[in-house]
Amino acid sequence: MDVAQVLHMNGGDGDYSYSNNSLLQRKVISMTKPIIDEALANLYSAMNFPKTLIMADLGCSSGPNTLLVASELVKSVDKIRQKFGNDESPEIQIYLNDLPHNDFNTIFLSMSKFQKNLTNQMVSNSSSPCYISGVPGSFYTRLFLSKSIHFVYSSYSLMWLSRVPKMINTNKNNIYLSTTSPPCVIKAYREQFQSDFLTFLKYRAEEMVSGGRMVLTILGRQSDDPCSKECCYVWDLLATSLKDMVAEGLIEEEKLDSFNIPQYTPNPKEVSNEVEKEGSFVIDCLEVSEVNWDACTDNNLNLSKEDVQGYNMGKCMRAVAEPLVLSHFGDSIIEEVFKRYTDNIKISMSGEKTKLVNVTVSMTRIG
Amino acid sequence: MDVAQVLHMNGGDGDYSYSNNSLLQRKVISMTKPIIDEALANLYSAMNFPKTLIMADLGCSSGPNTLLVASELVKSVDKIRQKFGNDESPEIQIYLNDLPHNDFNTIFLSMSKFQKNLTNQMVSNSSSPCYISGVPGSFYTRLFLSKSIHFVYSSYSLMWLSRVPKMINTNKNNIYLSTTSPPCVIKAYREQFQSDFLTFLKYRAEEMVSGGRMVLTILGRQSDDPCSKECCYVWDLLATSLKDMVAEGLIEEEKLDSFNIPQYTPNPKEVSNEVEKEGSFVIDCLEVSEVNWDACTDNNLNLSKEDVQGYNMGKCMRAVAEPLVLSHFGDSIIEEVFKRYTDNIKISMSGEKTKLVNVTVSMTRIG
Repeated sequence: MDVAQVLHMNGGDGDYSYSNNSLLQRKVISMTKPIIDEALANLYSAMNFPKTLIMADLGCSSGPNTLLVASELVKSVDKIRQKFGNDESPEIQIYLNDLPHNDFNTIFLSMSKFQKNLTNQMVSNSSSPCYISGVPGSFYTRLFLSKSIHFVYSSYSLMWLSRVPKMINTNKNNIYLSTTSPPCVIKAYREQFQSDFLTFLKYRAEEMVSGGRMVLTILGRQSDDPCSKECCYVWDLLATSLKDMVAEGLIEEEKLDSFNIPQYTPNPKEVSNEVEKEGSFVIDCLEVSEVNWDACTDNNLNLSKEDVQGYNMGKCMRAVAEPLVLSHFGDSIIEEVFKRYTDNIKISMSGEKTKLVNVTVSMTRIG
Repeated sequence: MDVAQVLHMNGGDGDYSYSNNSLLQRKVISMTKPIIDEALANLYSAMNFPKTLIMADLGCSSGPNTLLVASELVKSVDKIRQKFGNDESPEIQIYLNDLPHNDFNTIFLSMSKFQKNLTNQMVSNSSSPCYISGVPGSFYTRLFLSKSIHFVYSSYSLMWLSRVPKMINTNKNNIYLSTTSPPCVIKAYREQFQSDFLTFLKYRAEEMVSGGRMVLTILGRQSDDPCSKECCYVWDLLATSLKDMVAEGLIEEEKLDSFNIPQYTPNPKEVSNEVEKEGSFVIDCLEVSEVNWDACTDNNLNLSKEDVQGYNMGKCMRAVAEPLVLSHFGDSIIEEVFKRYTDNIKISMSGEKTKLVNVTVSMTRIG
């Protein structure tokens, strides 16, 4: 699997689009807002109220969350400016980055509305415009000019690996880490994360100005065990759907065994280890938070509460995982896989309080 | 007509896509290459070999021409660097700008191939990478941070106006300027160009560094008369097709009378007048060139020479004009309009040497 070619959220604005099924991710963005505000305030004062701020949202995806982040960043800077009693707004450039298959066209088409809304929401009318551009490419490569970026933000992107880890054994009957994964598979996943995250830090260190800030929220875990339920359960339920279809002869067993999600959900220690190893950043804050699966529930469907929860989390996961499943298994089984997956999610949500863990790290580029 | 919403080249890579029907525009790009090379060489030496060069291609469109321009810019800088005996390549940032309906997704998907090709074509292996981003928006607004851009390029874009000129009379039986256009219509078109081009220059002056260079190629004319055949004939032939369909009751007359192409093809004097009026730039070079309509002929079709010429120029014009025609007349008449238009082009090309006029201006940001 060429992750850079295959991995992207569902585009457009249809029923299974990421655009319409990313309320959970939106909730996470709003949860981390105080950390962003603090990082921006520190940046702004430490840099002595610069005339220009250049920011990047890495793994911006497509849909309302993309420009929500952009508008939160601009509004945050405007509030900080006012708080410090600075009359002149800085000009802000925001780079929206994601892999080339991300639906940038849909983002760009909503930009004039975004600019109008932003102007209306700003505390003052004196604020400068904000310039937005799209940057296609993997954040495991260089994306920007040297020493050009003041602030880097990323939410729910860095758990995606640059590739499926190279494994000696197959990860039989699993599609991600699980309690039944062999030790060498667990090792391969962990090492791939370490290598990818180190690469990410190295390139950002090159691109960021001294004193620049970076706030990253990564889908993660609290436990030391990378196979703990908190981070693996959501994929276990998809694996169960696929295994059932193998048992019924709808999917070949080999096909399932060769499918692995290119993701790793680190705990805080694993994140800070790599930051320390790379050496260009100091950590200002490292936090863990939780978000319930039903955070992506909306009230627009005429369904029972239980059904809504399963249905919404099912659609949320479909918007994220469909391109991966499609590229590996083909389109003939897609509907059936996600029907079963949604049912499994519904059953699990009715029996227990299911949640995702977020690791958020805020750091400063030193040197 | 909201030009910013309607105007864009045909996207994708289908039979009528701009991507597959822009050989004429490609020819024009290659014709103006010496002017670009000179401007870049002057920029590079005047700025004392900067470590970073930030460039913008305004009205970049989508398809092979878009990244052709980008790669020509990078290769040109690399040659200049070598000529001056400078060991270190500057880092290059290229902003690709077009209106929000431009197909940026298709550009972004071809970027990894572009980067690979570029590396292979470079004179040296020591050259820095080139960073590309997409900037959606009208170039009649601010697009970039203040004083951030070193080089601005635009080819075959600035003849497009920000809107259809406000006219007191209708431009009856015409869709663009023509020998039968009333004087007030001609005045309205000219004034719209003057106002738009002045706005363009004003914003670029804000965005460019002192000493920055700008090379613009505009579809134009040599004559003092804005209704001269050299610039109006190509639209006259489309008007004829539409008029014939009005006569046959396929299109309502009022519908035709309210359709006007948001374009103006200036002569060199009109271009230099606005540059002088705005005052932030000095003109280094102002040239007129011509390109034959059959420049967009390719040899891949199994047709007679005459047919190929008409067919290709027809497809080239369709790739450019279809979104405008479609938004005004609806999709029921599209095939018929462009069939007739292609036939008209074929007849005219068989009877005379038909050509387009390009006005190219190279200037330096002063002050």
